[in-house]
Amino acid sequence: MKSSSNRLIAERALAIRPFIVMEILEKAKAMESRGEKIIHMEIGEPDFDTPDVINQAAIEAIRLNLTKYTHSLGLAELRTAISRSINDEYGVVVDPEQIIVTTGTSAGMLLTFAALLNPGEEVVLSDPGYPCYSKFVDVVGGKPVYIHLNEQEGWEPSLSQIESVLSSKTKCIVVNSPMNPTGTIMSKTSLANIAQLSGPDRMVISDEIYHGMVYEGQAHSILEFTDQAIVINGFSKLHAMTGWRLCYLVVPPQLVRPIQKLQQNLYISAPTISQYAALAALDKAKPDIERMGALYDERRQWLVPCLKEMGFGIPVDPTGAFYVLADARHLSENSYDLVLEILAKAKVALTPGIDFGNNAEGHIRFSYATSLDEIKEACLRLREWLANR
Amino acid sequence: MKSSSNRLIAERALAIRPFIVMEILEKAKAMESRGEKIIHMEIGEPDFDTPDVINQAAIEAIRLNLTKYTHSLGLAELRTAISRSINDEYGVVVDPEQIIVTTGTSAGMLLTFAALLNPGEEVVLSDPGYPCYSKFVDVVGGKPVYIHLNEQEGWEPSLSQIESVLSSKTKCIVVNSPMNPTGTIMSKTSLANIAQLSGPDRMVISDEIYHGMVYEGQAHSILEFTDQAIVINGFSKLHAMTGWRLCYLVVPPQLVRPIQKLQQNLYISAPTISQYAALAALDKAKPDIERMGALYDERRQWLVPCLKEMGFGIPVDPTGAFYVLADARHLSENSYDLVLEILAKAKVALTPGIDFGNNAEGHIRFSYATSLDEIKEACLRLREWLANR
Repeated sequence: MKSSSNRLIAERALAIRPFIVMEILEKAKAMESRGEKIIHMEIGEPDFDTPDVINQAAIEAIRLNLTKYTHSLGLAELRTAISRSINDEYGVVVDPEQIIVTTGTSAGMLLTFAALLNPGEEVVLSDPGYPCYSKFVDVVGGKPVYIHLNEQEGWEPSLSQIESVLSSKTKCIVVNSPMNPTGTIMSKTSLANIAQLSGPDRMVISDEIYHGMVYEGQAHSILEFTDQAIVINGFSKLHAMTGWRLCYLVVPPQLVRPIQKLQQNLYISAPTISQYAALAALDKAKPDIERMGALYDERRQWLVPCLKEMGFGIPVDPTGAFYVLADARHLSENSYDLVLEILAKAKVALTPGIDFGNNAEGHIRFSYATSLDEIKEACLRLREWLANR
Repeated sequence: MKSSSNRLIAERALAIRPFIVMEILEKAKAMESRGEKIIHMEIGEPDFDTPDVINQAAIEAIRLNLTKYTHSLGLAELRTAISRSINDEYGVVVDPEQIIVTTGTSAGMLLTFAALLNPGEEVVLSDPGYPCYSKFVDVVGGKPVYIHLNEQEGWEPSLSQIESVLSSKTKCIVVNSPMNPTGTIMSKTSLANIAQLSGPDRMVISDEIYHGMVYEGQAHSILEFTDQAIVINGFSKLHAMTGWRLCYLVVPPQLVRPIQKLQQNLYISAPTISQYAALAALDKAKPDIERMGALYDERRQWLVPCLKEMGFGIPVDPTGAFYVLADARHLSENSYDLVLEILAKAKVALTPGIDFGNNAEGHIRFSYATSLDEIKEACLRLREWLANR
């Protein structure tokens, strides 16, 4: 028999898993409050401050009292600027009317799945993958269906595996490149092939939030290959604007109005000051992006060989975002216990692979959104811990 | 047979009604772009700029680079300040741990219903009422059940009517006082009686977003009468902070963790700059609130008699928020057609009652979130329109 509060609380809220990464972060902070020095490589948040040109635009908006609700689809000038940036980046023409400004990618995902999924309809997700996708699917009554990625193939989704899970109920296929938690980038061929699976009744949802954070090769937009797609992108990662909560969707014309109605009812509009800040992010922050990108790459080039040398398995080098998903099964099959051990012994905070799916169990995600000095110190500590283990 | 895009789009997205008020606003703006001068009394948004002390705090936060994600429950100091303000206002002690900072009341509502409702479980709503409640209930698969309010009783919910719709599936009863769209305030007795219907398996959800905007009598918090309640409140209305998207929930202890997990997954955290701004709103904006409140009341005292004189039915005076819901059935049974006629002929934009439920059909909502001069001009125009009708 259920306890009283279990009768009150919905099944989804009882069942939903917290981000384990948040638990690690809290444990690390508790250790810090006891005077320990922890190196944070668990968090998926840029360590850089938001570039000053962006801050200045936000301050200017506040001074001009531009703080009312905006149009539910977002500021017209921001939607135009986003359309222009997509054209510059990929050579794809997108009408500003197809762009919907959202409160972080979070809102973009909820709006997307709420607009597409009837209860029981299916979404193809990858394991490993960003754990929140399935939570958005769940909340609107949809059903996640998983394909397993293989690290020997650089965690690249296989077309045949996707095809094998498609059904008449499949409404969306989610791809994410550069990918969290692997830092890998899908090949042009792979993305083009998956684009072929889209159609008038089935969308490819391409989470492109790590676009622009690419250190080798090139990240392609799904829009280069199909119109039957929804792009999720924004300012949190590339522009170091996490707390601003501002992103956008690019959607086919027939989805604008349904998503707009959902946005009017479920969000009203995205944060206004952040929308003015985002305008500056597109117009003026290129030098900052280049500066930050060079530093991320420097860290990556230092960290990846160092992890390999220590014995972690990284069969295909990560070339985007700011993550490395390393095989640690030679140390433990249980990634959660392992990161707790590393936190306690080496004072380095990491994220267990299990946070991203059963298929990443035995792996550890290293985030290099922290300074090179910290990364070097983390490697020293890990080496010492391994030597004494 | 469904068309192709109807197979793609979820039932809820096809069925969801837009806010008619947004449609009126768009029509009004189109007329303005043709050079017409429209008076806006349709919008539920303060006409005042955000107070300068709040703006300054936001600017300071940006200067200090306080723009990363915050704790998923919100800044600790903000939660403490909210707890203190609740104690000051109602004499109720709430642990800061029970306060969850959210991205507008919108996020508060989605989190609340997602945490409580299994598919098919019921929520008691009032007709008329804020139209978005039912959209949040729908999106998580819950079922709205309506009680009809009676304008002769000042739109006060009747206990017996609520009791008559309760079932074993009823998880929440939503109350909203001061109320949108009526501007009326529930009596202490009424609220206390409804609080009696709460229990360990059934929450009263009290939307208190218009608290502090009270010109006669007193608005009571549900927390004065029961712990088995969730309060939705925030900064959008009282502090003229709509575009900042910042509100909060007060929840019983057993709901903190389920809602936190949902927040981590569905929102991450509320906008950071807005959280620092909200701290100043609580600490320093009292004189601004008094200034704005005096002006709202002056407008109300001018508008209500003026509407009555013109023949609109207002059996019980509105005493809170910035709305008047007036009976216009002597002019038309169809409130949508009527507001279109008024917009075309009198150049005054209003919201049709039907936007708030079938029970408000034949009524019109007047918002006095616009200057007294504009309100006076609107009344002149309405008189002239009526004289020529």
